[in-house]
Amino acid sequence: MSTERVKDLVVRWGEYEDVTRASMILEWDQETYLPQGGAEARSTHISALAGIAHEKLASRNFGAALKSAEKRKGLTPKERAMIREARREHLRAVRIPEALVREIAKAESRGLMAWRKAYSTNNWRIFAGNLAEIVRLKKRVADCVGYKGVAYDAHLDVFEPGATVQQLDPLLEGIKEATPPLVRRIARSKRKAPKVFRGRFAHAKQLEFGRKVVEEMGFDFTKGRIDLTTHPFCTSFDPGDVRLTTRVVEDDPRVCLFGLIHEAGHGLYEQGIDRAIVRTPVGHPVSLGIHESQSRMWENVVGRSREFWSHYLPEIKKTFPDELRGAKLDDFYFAVNEVTPSFVRTEADEVTYNLHVVLRYEIEKDLFAGKIKTSELPAIWNAKMKQLLGIVPKTHSEGVLQDIHWSMGLFGYFPTYFLGNLYGAQLWETAQKDIPRLTARIGKGQLLPLRDWLRKHVHAPGRTYPANELLRRATGETLSSQPFLRYVESKFGELYAL
Amino acid sequence: MSTERVKDLVVRWGEYEDVTRASMILEWDQETYLPQGGAEARSTHISALAGIAHEKLASRNFGAALKSAEKRKGLTPKERAMIREARREHLRAVRIPEALVREIAKAESRGLMAWRKAYSTNNWRIFAGNLAEIVRLKKRVADCVGYKGVAYDAHLDVFEPGATVQQLDPLLEGIKEATPPLVRRIARSKRKAPKVFRGRFAHAKQLEFGRKVVEEMGFDFTKGRIDLTTHPFCTSFDPGDVRLTTRVVEDDPRVCLFGLIHEAGHGLYEQGIDRAIVRTPVGHPVSLGIHESQSRMWENVVGRSREFWSHYLPEIKKTFPDELRGAKLDDFYFAVNEVTPSFVRTEADEVTYNLHVVLRYEIEKDLFAGKIKTSELPAIWNAKMKQLLGIVPKTHSEGVLQDIHWSMGLFGYFPTYFLGNLYGAQLWETAQKDIPRLTARIGKGQLLPLRDWLRKHVHAPGRTYPANELLRRATGETLSSQPFLRYVESKFGELYAL
Repeated sequence: MSTERVKDLVVRWGEYEDVTRASMILEWDQETYLPQGGAEARSTHISALAGIAHEKLASRNFGAALKSAEKRKGLTPKERAMIREARREHLRAVRIPEALVREIAKAESRGLMAWRKAYSTNNWRIFAGNLAEIVRLKKRVADCVGYKGVAYDAHLDVFEPGATVQQLDPLLEGIKEATPPLVRRIARSKRKAPKVFRGRFAHAKQLEFGRKVVEEMGFDFTKGRIDLTTHPFCTSFDPGDVRLTTRVVEDDPRVCLFGLIHEAGHGLYEQGIDRAIVRTPVGHPVSLGIHESQSRMWENVVGRSREFWSHYLPEIKKTFPDELRGAKLDDFYFAVNEVTPSFVRTEADEVTYNLHVVLRYEIEKDLFAGKIKTSELPAIWNAKMKQLLGIVPKTHSEGVLQDIHWSMGLFGYFPTYFLGNLYGAQLWETAQKDIPRLTARIGKGQLLPLRDWLRKHVHAPGRTYPANELLRRATGETLSSQPFLRYVESKFGELYAL
Repeated sequence: MSTERVKDLVVRWGEYEDVTRASMILEWDQETYLPQGGAEARSTHISALAGIAHEKLASRNFGAALKSAEKRKGLTPKERAMIREARREHLRAVRIPEALVREIAKAESRGLMAWRKAYSTNNWRIFAGNLAEIVRLKKRVADCVGYKGVAYDAHLDVFEPGATVQQLDPLLEGIKEATPPLVRRIARSKRKAPKVFRGRFAHAKQLEFGRKVVEEMGFDFTKGRIDLTTHPFCTSFDPGDVRLTTRVVEDDPRVCLFGLIHEAGHGLYEQGIDRAIVRTPVGHPVSLGIHESQSRMWENVVGRSREFWSHYLPEIKKTFPDELRGAKLDDFYFAVNEVTPSFVRTEADEVTYNLHVVLRYEIEKDLFAGKIKTSELPAIWNAKMKQLLGIVPKTHSEGVLQDIHWSMGLFGYFPTYFLGNLYGAQLWETAQKDIPRLTARIGKGQLLPLRDWLRKHVHAPGRTYPANELLRRATGETLSSQPFLRYVESKFGELYAL
């Protein structure tokens, strides 16, 4: 691959990227092995690297390399993509004044502390003022970086480049209309999920089985590893060094197992980036929505399918012969797919999950449009929960305070969870057409055909194509909520005999 | 502590130090958890940080802050120490041209690869040319940074600031004269160390016992941790985050245990640096020799003492009741103190260890004085082994090729191992005078009085005083080989009934 015409730009990008990757290693250690006494120094070191990375990205030299690359004649599509992505990152870095960046960092640091306290004491007021301040500053950020439609678009764009309220509204509306009726039909069904997981599932054995599954998904352990953490995530320092994390709950093996399959979905994406574009502006996952499509497809569409368990139930019984003695495929399959409205997003099933995102999306949109105030959020939250899921949380900690995101200034992030489900279902429909006997092969424990298809169509190109273009190339269609709705209607219609 | 007059310098130092500490985190991970596929990217990231740190340290701004601090009136001793240490590091950074730094990095990278191959195939010729090149470049470094006595001094000074051939020669000469006769007397003794360690010592139990001992030494596990590695080391990212590493050999529990005690000696030093000077030019261990005095004092003087085991033998028997059934204190004590000439430095006992360093010191000195050529090293090595230890290695891999250091350009490093033994014995003599019933208390498992004495006299001041001044303040004397010689004569005279 020739990148001769953008060589100087790629060199400068590499220098910037080295610092950000180094910082990610510090952050990984912070979440896995850092002793308590090292917390303060660690945040100093991470800030220092963030400052250096920002300097490099916003520097005149970077800008000059970019300009000179843009003037070159005869650029290849890949070179044009590199310039596009470098410009995008550079502009964001130069457009937000350093004073504002520092102000936000402080507000978020205070916000995070306030949120922790508010969450643990179930007291919204402790956090409300901090949140208002963060939203105020984030509106200024939107003004600095600019947007075509509404201010909220500027934040959506950070995590899902190109996404706008105009594009997302109809997608979320489709889900919002179709899901509550399905949830109600399920609630009326006479079929109920049986209890399959009883007793204690030993820590080490859970990890052993999870590791086996992840390896059979095609995750390469010479290029990655698994460690323990409180809030699992996946991070990549290079396609040759991808770290999955997980947590283990001894009376519920689903947490570790589905958590690992989920993170390994992310991990396969990171390991699958084409080596030729690594350490360039396009050598990264294209968006959080596409990233989440990989994790949720593996976790739910594959990992909670009947075919998957027709192969893996006998396998997991070898690891837990006593604990799962007598468990039948139908029961096991039902137990990992129970649908029931619940308060907490991270524990939601496949059907109700998106409604949790709809709720947050509508609130974020209205906050940034100035239609609602942070002081009104608890009441709005509960009203929307009632409307969408038919339930009302008893405490703010399992309601409006449940997520850490807003305290960290992460607005526009939640919709990517929703997009992941949609992208995932759409890619899955095409994969089923492209890969002969895909589900039958999964039923034999053959997971690599899917991994290879995803690698080719999703992982390898990195940011060569924007997300919508990537999807169009892979599936021939633009993003729609229909494949997802077809998928849940079919799967849960059958499961609950609707 | 006021550092108002050197504030700008301290701020710039902090920015430099953040990058070096970040790099140390990457290096720790490289030796503990890095998957094979991440090696190449990791070395790119580490080089990037090294480049940034060098830029910061050598920058005009750093130089200007230094100059301006030096001009201030009424500097406190601590401020003067900060300036002294900052100037020392700054000068080294500006005096070595970047082209030479890059040339050396390449030569060392090639050297390391050649050494690995030479070591594994027992073939000196593969490495000889690379070593000659490294020595040639290192001589140029000495010319760049300057020295008063001989070129080798410039390299000694990196690891042991202020150390010179003129100072070290008589110390090493004293050891070289006194040790071989002692070794010969021991060899003629009728007393022989009994075999105490039989069978298999379970991995997890070894770590559990080692952790217990280290904790009782006063190592604070809220400010540090233990991980596994191939070549154990200790590293510090902050006094609140000190990492020990160890390895476990199931048929010899001494490797893990004494290794951990050794690294914890280093770790206590790092944890003990006064918080008020952290992230300043004096907030670091003063020299590798002093560092090694801490590890070797804990490992050998304390950890291999009869008093220590009079307390810990019953303890370790609780962990390994079957494996150590019937082991008697005298036998156990003898088994961890056996003296016997051996080929490999890292496996040498307390008495012969220094001779291994004498050998390397003499070779390094002669190489840098141009008196010998790298091609002659195997013959010279074997002749010196014969002269000093009375044995000749059968292969180069257990002879001249045994250490990795030269392939990494680490000349002037070995003498710090020797200095550690000397400093350690001298500090130990004073500690015995200062701390009432010190050895009796160790016999009761009370290790904290020694930790506290070392913290006050050695750890807390960091680089406030140069090593020789630190030693004089702690012991009232300049460095001498006599305390060490008294210590080994007494301990091994008794043990071998000489």
